[in-house]
Amino acid sequence: MTLSKNRIKYIHSLELKKKRRDDQVFVAEGPKLAGELLGRFPCRFLAATHEWLQAFPNAKADEVVEVTDEELSKAGFLKTPQQVLAIFQQPEYEMDADVAQASLCLALDDVQDPGNLGTIIRLADWFGIEHVFCSLHTADIYNPKAVQASMGAIARVKVHYTSLFQVLSSLSGCPVYGTFLDGKNIYQESLSSHGLIVMGNEGNGISRDIAGLIGKRLYIPHYPEGRQTSESLNVAIATAITCAEFRRQMMANDGRLK
Amino acid sequence: MTLSKNRIKYIHSLELKKKRRDDQVFVAEGPKLAGELLGRFPCRFLAATHEWLQAFPNAKADEVVEVTDEELSKAGFLKTPQQVLAIFQQPEYEMDADVAQASLCLALDDVQDPGNLGTIIRLADWFGIEHVFCSLHTADIYNPKAVQASMGAIARVKVHYTSLFQVLSSLSGCPVYGTFLDGKNIYQESLSSHGLIVMGNEGNGISRDIAGLIGKRLYIPHYPEGRQTSESLNVAIATAITCAEFRRQMMANDGRLK
Repeated sequence: MTLSKNRIKYIHSLELKKKRRDDQVFVAEGPKLAGELLGRFPCRFLAATHEWLQAFPNAKADEVVEVTDEELSKAGFLKTPQQVLAIFQQPEYEMDADVAQASLCLALDDVQDPGNLGTIIRLADWFGIEHVFCSLHTADIYNPKAVQASMGAIARVKVHYTSLFQVLSSLSGCPVYGTFLDGKNIYQESLSSHGLIVMGNEGNGISRDIAGLIGKRLYIPHYPEGRQTSESLNVAIATAITCAEFRRQMMANDGRLK
Repeated sequence: MTLSKNRIKYIHSLELKKKRRDDQVFVAEGPKLAGELLGRFPCRFLAATHEWLQAFPNAKADEVVEVTDEELSKAGFLKTPQQVLAIFQQPEYEMDADVAQASLCLALDDVQDPGNLGTIIRLADWFGIEHVFCSLHTADIYNPKAVQASMGAIARVKVHYTSLFQVLSSLSGCPVYGTFLDGKNIYQESLSSHGLIVMGNEGNGISRDIAGLIGKRLYIPHYPEGRQTSESLNVAIATAITCAEFRRQMMANDGRLK
């Protein structure tokens, strides 16, 4: 059995957010990524090479098709064929902003680039951040590029699309952080073990409405101070440095650093 | 005057490394990026809209052509037209590995993705790292995607292509760091204000030959310890967290953090 033209057309149509949302599915490619997601999300369709299917005879999907590398490269979004392509059902998560009262969460205010978004989800996973709240104009985590950059972290990190304004307005007594070019040196602030870290859009940073709801304005100092440098950091990079510092302080407070 | 077909063809040909190297040039697009590089590197050719040329009447280039947004989008590599596209001469830097004896430098061992490379150069600039040594198989910093992701940082950070093995072998008494999944917790190490930080390839990390020359193996701890998580961090993310921690310790040692 091979991949029909209609099937290839359908897979390509899933590059569009509307189609993915209508069908509540997304595409993942490659043995590492698809392998990690199999068993975590219901798999609607699986196309794989003979070798891959021999190596993973227990892979479960509503439909399994054996294909050649050549067919896979026609169907998929990646430049080089990757042995396996799977269509998964999107998970449905219940959203409760109160998780930020008990644990550290991220909020993304219109992050536009799917690669940046996927990279942020991957690093959130690394730092044990389980919930990421995305504004409605943030890139779609089920965009093939975002799925690819997340490297399987979407199996563990829950991404919620919502009005950030409502989420931030609903929180009371919960610390809300954001990074700003005129914020306070992050290394001189005492950072909480719970709350929300807001990161902004690539070009414009955090929007004015949201900025008004942020109580703790942080800044990642460049080096040496006063030197002329790049105006800003990439949003995924800034998120990483910020999350790492929150976790470093938690480890230090817990006595886990000498 | 408009953009000739031959000119557009020539610009497109600069997507190829061989052509860029033969002609010793690279392309930069957009008012922010091209604007920052003008005056830093000799500009061989400049195509810009009427509005941009009116706003920057002193922009100097061997040849200047006024174009429409439509023409620019045909010529350039970006999806949306960006007012200005420039062809610059590649800078020539003298290389001296001994700079790592006096300042903090980066070394990239086969980083493949041009976006990751550009992002690393941008964050190197943020952290005042002036020299980046790249293995000969590292992506080309003059790839249009790398130039774009660097956001003008190539005006300040010097990127050298060389044999990392030779560079590392030639250093004596200079600390050489690398990140490894079995390294020591970076937050428990006393980090130097000079030396070399080596970062590895996206899929394979640091190669065996190079790893043998690394004296200080570091690890960015995930959180909480022992939890199942993503296997690794994106290379630009790991570089950022590592460089930030070096600089945080320098600021703390200099008494600049309370």
